[in-house]
Amino acid sequence: MENKRILKKDERIDQLYSQDVRIIQNPHYFAFSLDAVLLADFVRVNHRQKIKIVDLCAGNGAIGLFLHDKLGGTFTEVELQPPIADMASRSIALNNLQDRYTVVNDDIANINEYVPKDSVDIVLCNPPYFPVTAQSQKNPNKALAIARHEIATNLTTVIQKMSGLLKMNGHGYLVHRPDRLGEILQVCQKNRLAPKRVQFIYPKPDRDANILLLELIKDGKPGGMKIVPPLIVHGSDGSYTTAVRELLYGK
Amino acid sequence: MENKRILKKDERIDQLYSQDVRIIQNPHYFAFSLDAVLLADFVRVNHRQKIKIVDLCAGNGAIGLFLHDKLGGTFTEVELQPPIADMASRSIALNNLQDRYTVVNDDIANINEYVPKDSVDIVLCNPPYFPVTAQSQKNPNKALAIARHEIATNLTTVIQKMSGLLKMNGHGYLVHRPDRLGEILQVCQKNRLAPKRVQFIYPKPDRDANILLLELIKDGKPGGMKIVPPLIVHGSDGSYTTAVRELLYGK
Repeated sequence: MENKRILKKDERIDQLYSQDVRIIQNPHYFAFSLDAVLLADFVRVNHRQKIKIVDLCAGNGAIGLFLHDKLGGTFTEVELQPPIADMASRSIALNNLQDRYTVVNDDIANINEYVPKDSVDIVLCNPPYFPVTAQSQKNPNKALAIARHEIATNLTTVIQKMSGLLKMNGHGYLVHRPDRLGEILQVCQKNRLAPKRVQFIYPKPDRDANILLLELIKDGKPGGMKIVPPLIVHGSDGSYTTAVRELLYGK
Repeated sequence: MENKRILKKDERIDQLYSQDVRIIQNPHYFAFSLDAVLLADFVRVNHRQKIKIVDLCAGNGAIGLFLHDKLGGTFTEVELQPPIADMASRSIALNNLQDRYTVVNDDIANINEYVPKDSVDIVLCNPPYFPVTAQSQKNPNKALAIARHEIATNLTTVIQKMSGLLKMNGHGYLVHRPDRLGEILQVCQKNRLAPKRVQFIYPKPDRDANILLLELIKDGKPGGMKIVPPLIVHGSDGSYTTAVRELLYGK
């Protein structure tokens, strides 16, 4: 397939050097960020061929596509915004992964019309991070505002849907903002999701964490949460640390 | 005062090179650990002369004594076990700080018989970390078991008493185990304490966090919790990192 035929106006194809998948991006609608790369890396390997994976708020499908080799089984990519869901579909085709990947272009609130409850092994989610404010409503770029702010969905819905989809002992993976950790743990606990593993990502060695990665287990035992080693993105000189360079460019 | 006269059987006097206070220790009853040094360092400077500080589960008074210069005002050191409370009293005398420090030898559950509710600016606490198990009850060293396990008090009591003592907008400082973070945040929230600042301490760069430092504000706004930069105790070679060396031995 030629790139010219697959790409629409303002779109480009991005590929991480560390990954063998190509992702269609559009800066006006949605482009994956380091958060997506970090969440995919945080997911534990599972090569069983029959597992079911759902990505809620999938965007252009980057996280699911990064995991095509690390996870076996089939992926359902749920994305509300039609032009973004369409990029996900074309990215899947671009990588010839149509046999394992399905895009659902709908609100995650309706996910059970497509995927039954208690049926999924792994649910991934990189949701909108920011509560709605007067300012976020006024963002002239509606597509980016919906991806970043809780306009079309919110934390409670995300966690309820994640928990509802998962089988008992299924794993949820969430990337979010550390300043919402207290609220996140509370909503998880109300929805049968036990926090199992947490990682904090710091932009520089002397800066507060700005990304939170969380592994949750449905009906997991309470207590025993592990805070795994921190990841620092940039050194004091502003360049990527070795760990992040390897994530982006490979070893 | 001569050391011989002030010390009882098996006791010794320890002094951090970074600190100008001397602390009476007894390995059979109680000796402060790195956790106490870290909590004292985590506390923010407040030199106002009229503030009231309470240390719950004070042990031999190490945390309060480390803070004699960083905080103004008066300290109440609450310790249940008589021989340990006695070490605290003698450590205070050894440093000639009797005018600012009082030891209360009682259960923290009874603290309001000594200090009124809603009257304290800063409450410090390095409580027993571990829930009671069959094994902890059987520990032949009862004094150490009480200091480490929730035999004589527990997380809920600690947080209730901390919150009860604090004035509105007063600050609580807690050191605990990261695996109990979810439970800690929940109990704090039920008791009007908003988490404001969190630090995770990792024993080595590639190991899970084993110490949690938490700053809480009574009736503080929810949200806005900061995860401040991580602290790693030992380098890969096992020696102290520069940050910890400075805490122990000074700059």
